Amino acid sequence: MHWLDNVAWNEDGLIPAIAQDAASGRVLMVAWMNREALQLTAARQTATYWSRSRNKLWHKGEESGHVQVVKEIRLDCDGDVVILQVEQQGGIACHTGRESCFYRVLAQEGDAPQWEIRDAVLKDPTHIYSKGSGHE
Amino acid sequence: MHWLDNVAWNEDGLIPAIAQDAASGRVLMVAWMNREALQLTAARQTATYWSRSRNKLWHKGEESGHVQVVKEIRLDCDGDVVILQVEQQGGIACHTGRESCFYRVLAQEGDAPQWEIRDAVLKDPTHIYSKGSGHE
Repeated sequence: MHWLDNVAWNEDGLIPAIAQDAASGRVLMVAWMNREALQLTAARQTATYWSRSRNKLWHKGEESGHVQVVKEIRLDCDGDVVILQVEQQGGIACHTGRESCFYRVLAQEGDAPQWEIRDAVLKDPTHIYSKGSGHE
Repeated sequence: MHWLDNVAWNEDGLIPAIAQDAASGRVLMVAWMNREALQLTAARQTATYWSRSRNKLWHKGEESGHVQVVKEIRLDCDGDVVILQVEQQGGIACHTGRESCFYRVLAQEGDAPQWEIRDAVLKDPTHIYSKGSGHE
């Protein structure tokens, strides 16, 4: 069986892909992949996702330079999620200029929980994305 | 704004939730949550998911005993994925009896890549699930 046929693509032909820093173990981001994105990721050993907002392949770092060098790809038991162990070039995965997209923590403030920003912006996003698109 | 309204639920009212071992950093599993599952997870500090196959709330460990004690909940930049830092009771998250659901690695074998099982079964699943349902 072809390895791409072992993947349980959803009704849109996509699966979530987690990028985890291979050295620190920090989860950096989650994006989506279609068959071609996963095939390219494995072939080039750099992460390529499928942008659902722009409806096209997204070679991570193509604009920002924040390429993800892929050290390992794993598939889960149901075959519907992959996880990449990556070396994050530039140390920034998030379009907000932070290391990780998961920079908000659920914290108890007064009576009710709130999402609290805990991580610093390492680089001003306007200096990351020359074309000002935000999401590469 | 209510913290649950900051979450960008998909068209089915769900988001993916990653469970990561708080001590080792190993990503254990990915499941889905609806609003009630996330609310219960935060309130009880043990992980509750939404089972898409059984169409009901799934308090992780309810049958297996493999409860996930939640130490932290984070939300990503787009608000459409959460990550839980957990203490995995019993050291087994996967219904196959393995520590993590991500036990298959993409490996080059001969001409073509294949998914190769790398992690051991720690406990026979027939001894985990008394009712034989497999997925709790």
